[in-house]
Amino acid sequence: MQASETEWTDIEKKIARTAFEQAYKREIDALLKQVQKEASTLVDLNDIWRLHDFLSAKRHEIEGKYDYQYSVLLFIFAELIKEGWLSLNELKGLDQDKLSKVAVLSRM
Amino acid sequence: MQASETEWTDIEKKIARTAFEQAYKREIDALLKQVQKEASTLVDLNDIWRLHDFLSAKRHEIEGKYDYQYSVLLFIFAELIKEGWLSLNELKGLDQDKLSKVAVLSRM
Repeated sequence: MQASETEWTDIEKKIARTAFEQAYKREIDALLKQVQKEASTLVDLNDIWRLHDFLSAKRHEIEGKYDYQYSVLLFIFAELIKEGWLSLNELKGLDQDKLSKVAVLSRM
Repeated sequence: MQASETEWTDIEKKIARTAFEQAYKREIDALLKQVQKEASTLVDLNDIWRLHDFLSAKRHEIEGKYDYQYSVLLFIFAELIKEGWLSLNELKGLDQDKLSKVAVLSRM
């Protein structure tokens, strides 16, 4: 299921990088809005520590997820599609085999 | 320098508890305002992680500091005065020896 760097053409790499950055931007923008919203409703210390716990989890998740390596890129794309940060359509231009793999993985 | 529980009269305990809770309330209120303010100015992911780092440090600091034990209460009061969350005046009613110790410690 893995696809090493040599299996990506230059055009595919460009499409992949653009899709990756787009998904990243969307998720970060959503996170920014969510943190601003939650922070505006803080009432007591428990709320602050809840925000802290939330940020700890998000940081761990985001730093782990957005690791641009060709060997795991299809898995990352499938995950991003599953989570709604990317659509399969935005990967158009990758070869059919890669697209099929991402599509299958994203439904798992 | 330590004062165990037996060295505190009931009246002193009441004064100490009130002062402790007052300082705690002030610090938490200030923290709430600061977090709300910082959250409203978040622009990018670095800002979010900076907020996360700030909350991690604050949580560690606050959970360590507000530990109500008579054996270390004079040190806590001195620290709270030093940080501006309490004034020596609010400890009026403690015996002179305790007040002097807190005053000296708060200037160290």
